[in-house]
Amino acid sequence: MRLSQYFLPILRDDPKEAEIVSHRLMLRAGMIRQSSAGIYSWLPLGYKVLNKIERIVIEEQDRAGALQLLMPTIQPAELWRESGRYDAYGKEMLRITDRHERDMLYGPTNEEMITEIFRAGVKSYKDLPRNLYHIQWKFRDEVRPRFGVMRGREFLMKDAYSFDLTKEDSVRSYHKMFASYLRTFARMGLRAVPMRAETGPIGGDLSHEFIILAETGESAVYCHRDLVEMAPPPEDIDYGSDLTPYVDARTALYAATEDVHEPERFEKEVPKDKQLSARGIEVGQVFYFGTKYSEPMNAKVQGPEGELIPVEMGSYGIGVSRLVGAIIEASHDDAGIIWPQSVAPFDAGLINLKAGDAATDEACEKLYRSLQAAGLDILYDDRDDRAGAKFTTMDLIGLPWQIVVGPKGLASGEVELKHRATGEKIAISPDDVTERLRENVEAAIRGDA
Amino acid sequence: MRLSQYFLPILRDDPKEAEIVSHRLMLRAGMIRQSSAGIYSWLPLGYKVLNKIERIVIEEQDRAGALQLLMPTIQPAELWRESGRYDAYGKEMLRITDRHERDMLYGPTNEEMITEIFRAGVKSYKDLPRNLYHIQWKFRDEVRPRFGVMRGREFLMKDAYSFDLTKEDSVRSYHKMFASYLRTFARMGLRAVPMRAETGPIGGDLSHEFIILAETGESAVYCHRDLVEMAPPPEDIDYGSDLTPYVDARTALYAATEDVHEPERFEKEVPKDKQLSARGIEVGQVFYFGTKYSEPMNAKVQGPEGELIPVEMGSYGIGVSRLVGAIIEASHDDAGIIWPQSVAPFDAGLINLKAGDAATDEACEKLYRSLQAAGLDILYDDRDDRAGAKFTTMDLIGLPWQIVVGPKGLASGEVELKHRATGEKIAISPDDVTERLRENVEAAIRGDA
Repeated sequence: MRLSQYFLPILRDDPKEAEIVSHRLMLRAGMIRQSSAGIYSWLPLGYKVLNKIERIVIEEQDRAGALQLLMPTIQPAELWRESGRYDAYGKEMLRITDRHERDMLYGPTNEEMITEIFRAGVKSYKDLPRNLYHIQWKFRDEVRPRFGVMRGREFLMKDAYSFDLTKEDSVRSYHKMFASYLRTFARMGLRAVPMRAETGPIGGDLSHEFIILAETGESAVYCHRDLVEMAPPPEDIDYGSDLTPYVDARTALYAATEDVHEPERFEKEVPKDKQLSARGIEVGQVFYFGTKYSEPMNAKVQGPEGELIPVEMGSYGIGVSRLVGAIIEASHDDAGIIWPQSVAPFDAGLINLKAGDAATDEACEKLYRSLQAAGLDILYDDRDDRAGAKFTTMDLIGLPWQIVVGPKGLASGEVELKHRATGEKIAISPDDVTERLRENVEAAIRGDA
Repeated sequence: MRLSQYFLPILRDDPKEAEIVSHRLMLRAGMIRQSSAGIYSWLPLGYKVLNKIERIVIEEQDRAGALQLLMPTIQPAELWRESGRYDAYGKEMLRITDRHERDMLYGPTNEEMITEIFRAGVKSYKDLPRNLYHIQWKFRDEVRPRFGVMRGREFLMKDAYSFDLTKEDSVRSYHKMFASYLRTFARMGLRAVPMRAETGPIGGDLSHEFIILAETGESAVYCHRDLVEMAPPPEDIDYGSDLTPYVDARTALYAATEDVHEPERFEKEVPKDKQLSARGIEVGQVFYFGTKYSEPMNAKVQGPEGELIPVEMGSYGIGVSRLVGAIIEASHDDAGIIWPQSVAPFDAGLINLKAGDAATDEACEKLYRSLQAAGLDILYDDRDDRAGAKFTTMDLIGLPWQIVVGPKGLASGEVELKHRATGEKIAISPDDVTERLRENVEAAIRGDA
């Protein structure tokens, strides 16, 4: 993509309303634009990141055997009256009346709706287990939306719902999602730590939050240091196998958010040198809630003996739009964002230091074609602008690599390849940079996953 | 995908509420489930089709130089007060009040919001032209929603918005979208005919609807027969060139929906043997409306002389969810849906005629692995069910190819490859069927585009 033809409304100054770094950088880098409180448009650069995150979530959900569908944003109130949550859910639920005076709502979550879909479609235990998921915009009418996409009102979420015959099977389904979440976040360059959590309005008696560590995190977290270093599951993890040992290894050590933190247990169970107190951001949560919805909504299957059995359910959320902010919170410096390769909006930026100079233009054009032919997604800054401004923009938007092309370097047969994260620069022949970059990009993506 | 592990709630009987064939078949084939009037969940099979259609739309929009972003579903009323449309738009607009008593609405279209994004980000004529698009769920509170996804309330739409300095440039942008629409629909196996149209609530003085012909179409259409046969633009169409001649050739001949049909002109301009009266379904519409929004909303750029100039705009819609229904209306028979290859939920179905029989199971498993290894997306009916029921299901859901494997055929070293559209069957060695199918699939996709 040529920057001269792109839509990248960079802000020079820090927007006053942004209290945290991800919000500030997303506004400044032209990734989002606020439409109203807690509601954003995703501009082309931001939308590309959102898409890449969504793609990783889809791949890992599919790998774990979940089936993708899509439920609508607007739900009928009667469905929530069946489960008893319509009145229980507070003002965060956006309630709507349609032209025929029917009570509707903008879904803040989908337990009721998926239970309705399941009960209409599945009648026998032979059709279990099933895990159905979707990625859809949800709405929670936060009283004070803030922190940009981290606590917005309209937000994109992946939510999966598992259906099993027995509690034991349901825990197996829970473990699958648990393991797949660690893979999902690792592929985005994040090490997420599962922490025992409260179940809140979803209900049930087993729940874990997945927390990433970031200095600017929203809450204090306490855990055994080893949890942060544990490797994610490998690509060929067998989701058909019993993952209990895997999950046990990751839940045996102490880990708690401040809501459920027990200082005495922490001191007792975790050796001093392994005690980690940090700030954390929640990027996902999983729940087992048994028959909380299937009982009142009559979602039953015929068991092996012909008897009707309410299905055991769990639900599994990932904050897809929130992840964009969370990744920035975990990965930035004073100059701007530092994207992990797998979610970077472009693989690299190509900077023309002297647009208008025939030789530099020609070298850049040739390189741009070569990079694209190698399957790399490049943002080419072909604008007539000062070198300093170009560097500032490229650092701000945080592409993992920058290729800098100028007349001086070209005179000695060189361009510069800069690594955004480390600042490391190498001089390299224009003929070799494409292959080198391709290798670097592939290595970086492998390294995360 | 193994059907035994899929979620495909087939209905045996015709649902009473379905008045048209696409609605009936989508419900019966387990593609959608109604949540409330005019609002549907997209079950896994339907969602796959929706996704494939969306992917084609994205590829063709990108090819034509449009930039993808994403605007939220919920918009502030004040934006619509700026353009003057808030009060003008009728009861189809779903009006919402949030917890702080602010007037919001579920976007039925996005002219105001994109104009706001544009005016905040672009200040100079040097940054023109731009075409920004998104694919998002919209809501129109139809008084009587019907025909399934063809006239639903919550629906998925691609809408693009062009910004130019002059009317002449704006018409060039209009022509790009015009040509890209013909390619887009052709890739889905549809021949769309552009017809001069009313502009309605969007406004402006130039508009075309893109109509596909189907016996069950919603309105009568009249056109010169040659328009239906005209080839779509080639893959390497140069969107940077002047497409006026291309568009002129497709607008010179008579074509009109019943709203604007002029019987006398039709008789006079179109030779008897070229007169085509048919039923049509609108799948897209393009508008040039100049400064209708940029004037009142003050979306101006600095021109070459430093003067402020309101931008010339157009908008370009494609009914993405509607297309799923429209394709079925155009392509089905008494047994069910007949998917064009490019949008088929799976490339082919694999039918095991005797699940449980060791030799048949083994042959099917081997074939299933081989087909997947060739990059084909296969729905494998591995269930223990009657052959007749399996054929009925496979015909109903309309995958373009069926591979039928049974003990008798295997004894003589053969499986059957059936073409859903023509019913043609060939006996072929299991060792050859993967390669043959791969060739057929590729040829079919090339054939449409």
